[in-house]
Amino acid sequence: MLNWEDIFATRSSRMKASEIRELLKLLDRPDIISFAGGIPDPALFPDEEFKAAYADIFSGSAVNAALQYSVSEGYKPLREWLTGEMGKLGITCSADNVFIVSGSQQGLDYLGKLFLSPGDTALVTWPTYLGALQAFNAYEPNYDKLALSGNRTPESYRKTAQEAGGKVKFAYLSADFANPTGETVDRAGRERLIDLADELDIAIIEDAAYQSLRFDGEAIPPILALEIARKGDINATRTIYCGSFSKTLAPGLRIGYVVANADIIRKLVLMKQAADLHSSTINQMAIAHVTERGFDAQVKKIKAAYSKRRDAMLAALAKYMPESVRWTKPEGGMFIWVTLPEGMDGATLLAKAIETKKVAFVPGKAFHADGSGANTLRISFSCADEKTIDEGISRLGALIREELA
Amino acid sequence: MLNWEDIFATRSSRMKASEIRELLKLLDRPDIISFAGGIPDPALFPDEEFKAAYADIFSGSAVNAALQYSVSEGYKPLREWLTGEMGKLGITCSADNVFIVSGSQQGLDYLGKLFLSPGDTALVTWPTYLGALQAFNAYEPNYDKLALSGNRTPESYRKTAQEAGGKVKFAYLSADFANPTGETVDRAGRERLIDLADELDIAIIEDAAYQSLRFDGEAIPPILALEIARKGDINATRTIYCGSFSKTLAPGLRIGYVVANADIIRKLVLMKQAADLHSSTINQMAIAHVTERGFDAQVKKIKAAYSKRRDAMLAALAKYMPESVRWTKPEGGMFIWVTLPEGMDGATLLAKAIETKKVAFVPGKAFHADGSGANTLRISFSCADEKTIDEGISRLGALIREELA
Repeated sequence: MLNWEDIFATRSSRMKASEIRELLKLLDRPDIISFAGGIPDPALFPDEEFKAAYADIFSGSAVNAALQYSVSEGYKPLREWLTGEMGKLGITCSADNVFIVSGSQQGLDYLGKLFLSPGDTALVTWPTYLGALQAFNAYEPNYDKLALSGNRTPESYRKTAQEAGGKVKFAYLSADFANPTGETVDRAGRERLIDLADELDIAIIEDAAYQSLRFDGEAIPPILALEIARKGDINATRTIYCGSFSKTLAPGLRIGYVVANADIIRKLVLMKQAADLHSSTINQMAIAHVTERGFDAQVKKIKAAYSKRRDAMLAALAKYMPESVRWTKPEGGMFIWVTLPEGMDGATLLAKAIETKKVAFVPGKAFHADGSGANTLRISFSCADEKTIDEGISRLGALIREELA
Repeated sequence: MLNWEDIFATRSSRMKASEIRELLKLLDRPDIISFAGGIPDPALFPDEEFKAAYADIFSGSAVNAALQYSVSEGYKPLREWLTGEMGKLGITCSADNVFIVSGSQQGLDYLGKLFLSPGDTALVTWPTYLGALQAFNAYEPNYDKLALSGNRTPESYRKTAQEAGGKVKFAYLSADFANPTGETVDRAGRERLIDLADELDIAIIEDAAYQSLRFDGEAIPPILALEIARKGDINATRTIYCGSFSKTLAPGLRIGYVVANADIIRKLVLMKQAADLHSSTINQMAIAHVTERGFDAQVKKIKAAYSKRRDAMLAALAKYMPESVRWTKPEGGMFIWVTLPEGMDGATLLAKAIETKKVAFVPGKAFHADGSGANTLRISFSCADEKTIDEGISRLGALIREELA
């Protein structure tokens, strides 16, 4: 009687509270320097621009439309603005290829829902974005490790999927300044991924959440752009591009987008109609208003601030970390990935770091679909000033040295 | 190669474009009188109140919070305001029992996701809300007809579910002025439903989208309130209450709520964290702002307008319809349900109505999980003035008389 577990769907057993997330909830304490968050710095939000956007909506004739139900595919002017932006990246498309979602996280959830039956296989990198694993888990997949180099054959992916009771359905990855590693997949790696997907006849889910936050180095075309260049038309491609306004403008409005083959978009629109009808009309209008009046300037402002913080964090790591610790050198985004000496445990280190050093980060194990990566951790430079970054990394370096001693 | 159907999940075969919806898309033509929509009248939106809400958010210290990520369970002040509102309905609860969703449609989607494995059974009325069927379809259930009177035994539901390859998981219904029928389940029917759910050990999903729009007659406590009265504590209940601001304030913000046993809420919060993180922060704040400053006055205004339109529609039906046509007499909401003589087809009638009489409605078949109900139709009085209602029903009555002649 009222034993809910007996009547929940089988998928519910894969929806668990994360211990790490529970621990990190406690970190609103002002005495702790936290590199754990993966959130944008609110001081950089274009709040004046949003204020003007909402005020304009309520002063004009669009107010009734802003408050009313709207179409599941999204607000047309925003979709049209996005076709222009996509064009600049080599993704030639029309509004029929653009679908508005309530944050790119929703795009990942919908794509899991569209492709995965229980037992099907999703290819993901080790490590990968934790939120993608959480979104896909609801559809009860098996995970296999996506290798972008080395000599793993397409046949071996097929075989592993078959043994797990399903088919390979897609490869998911973040190609630019990935969460959690900060790393970028080079052009050759992207081309090899398209080859692999063609060979396996699967989709590619390209998570572009951080793509516009490149501080230096040369931009590499999105996987979708490379595939369009190869095949001549977005409607002949298999790459599904998930974009976000959460890192460039503001996450609180929950507006993101998916750009893909029109066959996929039509299916996603039907799915959204059934799942939540449409994303907030007024927020889509506000985003459209702000993008049309100065998106590039806003992105420039954010990149200037974050790149200084990235520099400060890399300098501090070089200054304070013992030689046995390694880390990535991201060309953009929000994250640096740290590898501790083999045998050292990130979760144990976090407990000590909070207690004895008042500094926090995210242990890396949660980002691994197979539970490996115990000796890794993710640190974010997005929300701390340079001085705080130096102080926090100095504390973390001291703790690691103590642990090694 | 790029035969997407081969790699979509099995559920995708149940996501189809509705022919009716495609037809009704054409109805933005000003020369057609449409009773097809189920949307609120935008002239009744509290736009001045929303204008003030957004302006206040941007003038105060909450602006950074409004634009930032927030917790998956929802904005605390709004959840707390809702506990007070729920208390007035006999639903004694705390903020731990309240969860904010992106429209109550999302609540239905999440509940389907939480309970239904493929082949499980959902009990629904014949007819029922089309959007609920669409939301649940993604989880590949079987449907069985929920009978609130008569002598169907609990055992017979169990047996049918077993034959379909699963278990009965929940009964879904809208108890007040339901979409599409406008009908209300009486107190005895609600009590019998709780008995049945206890007997079957299943959940009840109470869709309360129209509950606050009662124009006359005596209010009946929500099913959840009756169950709390019986069992003493919301955390001992199995009824999950889905509420909406879309009919009372405005649908374009996509803010609704679920009120239930805290065990269920915790599970839904985890699900939302994985699916879209949280509902729009700024919109939750705006709704909280407006509710705290005059929710009751707004509801009163809407009810006054809609009840006049309901009266006009009932009067017109009595005036223009032939004797063989029957219809419901709703005490609130937005809809009247019309039953044509046996053998007459609502979809065929719609095509003729649009072409020859310039009047539209929704044929009733789509609301039936078993494809029955061909001789029914739904008409809405929410968006037309009294004169237009009289004219539109007069045209429809004339067409039906011609068909019968």
